[in-house]
Amino acid sequence: MYAMAATVYLIGAGPGDPDLLTVKAQRLLQQAGVVLYDRLVDPAILDLVPTGSERIFVGKRHGEQSVTQDEINELLVAYADVARTVVRLKGGDPFVFGRGSEEAAYLAAKGVPFEVVPGISSCYAVPELALIPVTERRTASSWGVFSGHAAGRADDADPVIPWEATRHLDTLVFLMAVRSRQAIGRELLRHGRSPREPAAFIERGASPRQRVIVTTLGELAETPPAVESPAILVVGEVVHRRAELLTMARGRA
Amino acid sequence: MYAMAATVYLIGAGPGDPDLLTVKAQRLLQQAGVVLYDRLVDPAILDLVPTGSERIFVGKRHGEQSVTQDEINELLVAYADVARTVVRLKGGDPFVFGRGSEEAAYLAAKGVPFEVVPGISSCYAVPELALIPVTERRTASSWGVFSGHAAGRADDADPVIPWEATRHLDTLVFLMAVRSRQAIGRELLRHGRSPREPAAFIERGASPRQRVIVTTLGELAETPPAVESPAILVVGEVVHRRAELLTMARGRA
Repeated sequence: MYAMAATVYLIGAGPGDPDLLTVKAQRLLQQAGVVLYDRLVDPAILDLVPTGSERIFVGKRHGEQSVTQDEINELLVAYADVARTVVRLKGGDPFVFGRGSEEAAYLAAKGVPFEVVPGISSCYAVPELALIPVTERRTASSWGVFSGHAAGRADDADPVIPWEATRHLDTLVFLMAVRSRQAIGRELLRHGRSPREPAAFIERGASPRQRVIVTTLGELAETPPAVESPAILVVGEVVHRRAELLTMARGRA
Repeated sequence: MYAMAATVYLIGAGPGDPDLLTVKAQRLLQQAGVVLYDRLVDPAILDLVPTGSERIFVGKRHGEQSVTQDEINELLVAYADVARTVVRLKGGDPFVFGRGSEEAAYLAAKGVPFEVVPGISSCYAVPELALIPVTERRTASSWGVFSGHAAGRADDADPVIPWEATRHLDTLVFLMAVRSRQAIGRELLRHGRSPREPAAFIERGASPRQRVIVTTLGELAETPPAVESPAILVVGEVVHRRAELLTMARGRA
């Protein structure tokens, strides 16, 4: 007898705070028969999953993938055949540096129905919660997002940051920017940005342990500050907003 | 007698669908004493506000601002003195082309406490719901966001799109891109992108009336398709993903 596979929900968990889940993500987690999740997800988010349901960690441990991407793809297809509601939960948003589109493409190729549920992406929300707007009328009308993993790599298979673009954009956001931070600072200066331009690292953004480190591109290139992963780097005049807004900000800032 | 002003919550409503509100936004709306809201917010979102509370429209009507930005700023300060929970509700995210940071700066200058609550930004979520990922391993590791209002304007006060940057970025997203769509197409070609490169407009994204129009940069520059506001324009190889993913997609796609 042929049974239609269950829908796989590719869900963005947002930057970590369970309060920043979407209403739809919350409801689907409460109905999930199985959840396959990455690191960067607050344990409180998993508490929403029914007691009898499976929670499967498929993220990175000590920088190493615990389960390969091929294995994740296979697991999603396998669970779609047996579980009622299959949730693939990813930090941030599934389609912003999340490999969610690869998983969706695999499911489509295998004839498994899926639905994508956007999550709050860290690329603007982490700066925002640290009171740094990525855009601002007059001072910041263009904004670029890059993966820091792409900086300072020798392997041709890795993506390359288009440094030529960086000099023309008002605000730059680099995700996963800790290891390559000095290389990023040097390349930005080499491509025409000012050493006096402000830059901010936000460590453990959107969490109670958030820490913001404000520096300049000159310092970043010469003597980069100590920063712990995970952290996001924001470059641009908008970094100055933080000090202005901090006096009256409530919540975590 | 001195009474501390209430906290003003600058809340992102997301791209329109009430299901894509955050849990925190939903809770704050249910507690709001007054909500000042823009256009682009689904009426169902306002239904969350308690019956006795005020709902004040401060957005654009027929392209004209019903209330000026200065008046909105003043209203926020005034309501913070009299209401318990003041919500400023904005489409998308308050700090992504939302003028939220201006409002926050005004509140900070006036000594009014505020808190920013990120919302799902249309700049990636509207393409995502149309099955177009803004990033993708190997093919799209950099991504730029621009305001279409900045294209083809003669007024020096308006922001300018940094066309030099556009040729080096993998994916380009233009918000509010309808009126200037032909100018965008022409400038992108003039700055070295290929006329065969795919581009997609997403009209009324994240709504049951979403419509996706796929074209090429060559067509966009020569004979641009009819598109209605509001719409988002996505340019890049990632546009091809839509056709691949559409077969098995559930929900609105």
